[in-house]
Amino acid sequence: MNRVKTKTQFWTHVHSQLESLLDGQRNWVSNLANTSSLIYNALLAFPTHFGPDSDKAVNWCGFYIDSTRFPKSTDWEVEGNRLLLGPFCGKPACQFINVTPGKARGVCADAFMDAETKSVPDVDSYPGHIACDGETKSEIVCPLIHGNQVLGVLDLDCLAMCGFDEDDQKGLEKIVELVVNACDWH
Amino acid sequence: MNRVKTKTQFWTHVHSQLESLLDGQRNWVSNLANTSSLIYNALLAFPTHFGPDSDKAVNWCGFYIDSTRFPKSTDWEVEGNRLLLGPFCGKPACQFINVTPGKARGVCADAFMDAETKSVPDVDSYPGHIACDGETKSEIVCPLIHGNQVLGVLDLDCLAMCGFDEDDQKGLEKIVELVVNACDWH
Repeated sequence: MNRVKTKTQFWTHVHSQLESLLDGQRNWVSNLANTSSLIYNALLAFPTHFGPDSDKAVNWCGFYIDSTRFPKSTDWEVEGNRLLLGPFCGKPACQFINVTPGKARGVCADAFMDAETKSVPDVDSYPGHIACDGETKSEIVCPLIHGNQVLGVLDLDCLAMCGFDEDDQKGLEKIVELVVNACDWH
Repeated sequence: MNRVKTKTQFWTHVHSQLESLLDGQRNWVSNLANTSSLIYNALLAFPTHFGPDSDKAVNWCGFYIDSTRFPKSTDWEVEGNRLLLGPFCGKPACQFINVTPGKARGVCADAFMDAETKSVPDVDSYPGHIACDGETKSEIVCPLIHGNQVLGVLDLDCLAMCGFDEDDQKGLEKIVELVVNACDWH
């Protein structure tokens, strides 16, 4: 990582590490667990822009996935249109996000419903923001898209306002493309 | 957490938090994600015995689960007897652990095969130890048991030798009991 100076170099490096990490495994639970760990730990090791010692740290990185992709559980029938908490790094998080049309709210729900990345420089000013952690100041959410289906979202929170820029967005959108293609989604 | 002084108080506090965290959700992927996050972050906030600023930090906490419990993927048939990486906190980890009789090796595999907790004060002296992270010095692995089936394991790594004592073992064994009962395992 010592020769990684710019964000473009950083994300290119992470993409290369990710491809190695996913190689030989098609299960989405395992692959999303390693992906969230890689992103989270890579960002903490890149103090120029993030880093654990500053107030710019990324404090949460993980996935919410359409409930129909999960192993079945007894509350299956009542779940309706929900994203369930998937693998992540950071403090404990909301178990699910409502994505029923007309009832969906928050950055994750909007990214999922609109099938497009939402980058929010100031979460407190976002309509319908769901505060899982009051310390979070900015957020970026990228949808996982497979053909014409939206599978879920990758969600990152940051302790600083304006924590994510266009380079981060491009880097994270490439990550979700890599991980979607590396997994089976029956 | 300020009034938590002893390890017994610490684990009792974590058990109480865990019951709240799992309430209303039966899906094992979501519940194991929140459980590993709760344990990892609680230990980092309990500097008397662990804590991020010392060389005693717990550096990995997560689950490996019997591959047959996961959503199906195309490498299903070749997986044989494997534990696959589940939700965790810490650096990226091995995708799977071989638990085929005669080929199983390492602390996780032994805890799974023997259906009993393995607490290893010095991993370098453990026969067949699989080093996912060379910094790890000690390890504790508790099996997840449901009736007469072993579902998988909870694995914690520590940067210090002798990182886990009998109080930790009791605390973690209670955690796996709580989380196994809180989830559906079809």
